[in-house]
Amino acid sequence: MRVLILGGDGYLGWPTAMHLTAKGHEVAVVDNYLRRRLCREENVEPLFDVPNLHERARIWESRSGCKVRVFIGDLRRWEIMAEVFQSFIPDAIVHYAEQPSAPYSMLNRRAAALTLSNNLEITANLIFAVREWCPEAHIVKLGTMGEYGTPDIDIEEGWIDIEHKGRRDRFLYPRQAGSLYHTTKIMDTDLLWFYVRMWDLRVTDLMQGPVYGLVTEENLSELRLFPFFNYDEIFGTVLNRFVVQAVAGYPLTVYGQGGQTRGYLNIKDTLSCVRLALENPAGKGELRIFNQFTETFSVNQLAEKVKEVGDQFNLGVNINHLENPRIEKEDHYYNPAHSRLLDLGLQPHYLTDRTISEILEKILQFKERIKKEQIFRKISWN
Amino acid sequence: MRVLILGGDGYLGWPTAMHLTAKGHEVAVVDNYLRRRLCREENVEPLFDVPNLHERARIWESRSGCKVRVFIGDLRRWEIMAEVFQSFIPDAIVHYAEQPSAPYSMLNRRAAALTLSNNLEITANLIFAVREWCPEAHIVKLGTMGEYGTPDIDIEEGWIDIEHKGRRDRFLYPRQAGSLYHTTKIMDTDLLWFYVRMWDLRVTDLMQGPVYGLVTEENLSELRLFPFFNYDEIFGTVLNRFVVQAVAGYPLTVYGQGGQTRGYLNIKDTLSCVRLALENPAGKGELRIFNQFTETFSVNQLAEKVKEVGDQFNLGVNINHLENPRIEKEDHYYNPAHSRLLDLGLQPHYLTDRTISEILEKILQFKERIKKEQIFRKISWN
Repeated sequence: MRVLILGGDGYLGWPTAMHLTAKGHEVAVVDNYLRRRLCREENVEPLFDVPNLHERARIWESRSGCKVRVFIGDLRRWEIMAEVFQSFIPDAIVHYAEQPSAPYSMLNRRAAALTLSNNLEITANLIFAVREWCPEAHIVKLGTMGEYGTPDIDIEEGWIDIEHKGRRDRFLYPRQAGSLYHTTKIMDTDLLWFYVRMWDLRVTDLMQGPVYGLVTEENLSELRLFPFFNYDEIFGTVLNRFVVQAVAGYPLTVYGQGGQTRGYLNIKDTLSCVRLALENPAGKGELRIFNQFTETFSVNQLAEKVKEVGDQFNLGVNINHLENPRIEKEDHYYNPAHSRLLDLGLQPHYLTDRTISEILEKILQFKERIKKEQIFRKISWN
Repeated sequence: MRVLILGGDGYLGWPTAMHLTAKGHEVAVVDNYLRRRLCREENVEPLFDVPNLHERARIWESRSGCKVRVFIGDLRRWEIMAEVFQSFIPDAIVHYAEQPSAPYSMLNRRAAALTLSNNLEITANLIFAVREWCPEAHIVKLGTMGEYGTPDIDIEEGWIDIEHKGRRDRFLYPRQAGSLYHTTKIMDTDLLWFYVRMWDLRVTDLMQGPVYGLVTEENLSELRLFPFFNYDEIFGTVLNRFVVQAVAGYPLTVYGQGGQTRGYLNIKDTLSCVRLALENPAGKGELRIFNQFTETFSVNQLAEKVKEVGDQFNLGVNINHLENPRIEKEDHYYNPAHSRLLDLGLQPHYLTDRTISEILEKILQFKERIKKEQIFRKISWN
């Protein structure tokens, strides 16, 4: 299968490119290095340097024999999108090309405007490119569990049957997110669902929870093939941050009461989920939605798990309950469905002490590079 | 009350400015003449010329003694939005500054991109301006009944209580629109609702149906104070178009079976609804939603009504069922609530033969100016 990965330089984009080529797919990636630029501007550089995309493709090919074709450009510009689709007609597209940080989107007006325009315009350009050059292609869009928020009823996989005053209809599950970033993902869903109905597109929306980890089957032995690893408040996801904090002797930053519960998954499972979605495409005119996580934890539970493993390494981990800079419920009902990817054959890597140790051991190698001032910036939602 | 009208040059913007000043409010308008430019580009000029905003403000002041302050500029540019808010701090904002045509938004990729960026970026800039300069101000946002689409259950006013698997919560009523334009209005709602929750904004979302008419209490005697009157497929609303077609001897263009049912209102009622919303503002942290229409009709019913009145004028009106260029249900359930504006005191002007005659008599004065080639362009959704 020919797969085009938009946002192929990111935390998930590059590991996905390696994984799909290792499984025999033909892959091209596009990126404009936006994430690198934003990390530099906000002084939250990743824990270790990663080579640029051309260089990573070269190293990966020399190690595995697998080729990844690289395009560099800003997909908000139609001529870039057009150029890519004219030279690589895909069977499927994996769309990661979004500003992916909730705190970044809440930083200030310019960051909000960038998030809004970037995420919406690229999604729109993608839809028009598929319509123009490959209307049968399958779009695999990364959504987020954060689109649902924390409603007081069970969260279904994308759709809900509503009975109201004796009548009944099926709707997109109501969405109500907790950051501007997450809100742009709701808008992406609105946009995709509209054009699916109009133009019979094939779309899978993967409502993903926060991802953790940095080791995948493809990068085991070669540091230069590792993904970006952010441990800061802006671009770092919570478990990754906690492990770095444990290593750095920085008390784990739990916001408020720490009862906030979310669905999490290992980066290895992200790769499997995306591949399973690609290999079992959505039908024509279908917006198929999967909730992509393997287990739920509260922030307190994550902190306790990291403390326990950290203490096995004699790190003497402390947990600090900070005033919550976000506006969110700290204690809430949370019962999201997540059976459809398991039905497709996902074999989860659960969050065991062993998994945390594996990440922690890697981080220990870079202990000297951790900059404590990057960890907590108190980016306020208000 | 100091009211800032964004999109003050439009079909509804200018009549609203006159109406509010006539009722004693202090009003400023902003516009960048986007609508005029698009009408010119697509060769769908309004039925008669209307003076520019400065000129209209001058004429209105000479007739009524009421002043309207005029700003010209593109509100997508933050510096323009900032300049306006720095020199006119409003108590309330009426936000009409959107590309308002469904067919225009379906014309091609560039028109879709313009609609998406224009509508979203201005709404975002407005939110940030209110936050910065007048966090207590009341935003009155024009939404559209089209956001709901045509679900098989009753449409409530913005919100719905959902009972699911023995639990219960309240949500934004699920939205699923029939054009890209309408989809951008869903996104506006997503955006406003997010920042209402974050920053305790006061917002009223007026989910308006198609508006008809051109006579208001303020423009009775002076043609130069009339609103834009489009009768083309792109910017003309359906009843206005049908009346012009009757006058021009052009068979009324009913799409498909004509069973499509929507909620309609007279332009006079739009002005009252907006004023009632302004004079009874939403609370802090409230997204208040009203369904803004006074009665529902199928397209067939509208065509029959216009034919009946046209025939009284000996116009010999024909009705033509065309292949539907849109993708929409032509026969569907439709039962939307609309009591909240009535509760605030709205006195509807219903669509009587008298109302249609009033519009028709005005149009007859411009019969020679009607360009038949503007009427139907067959802009396809597919």
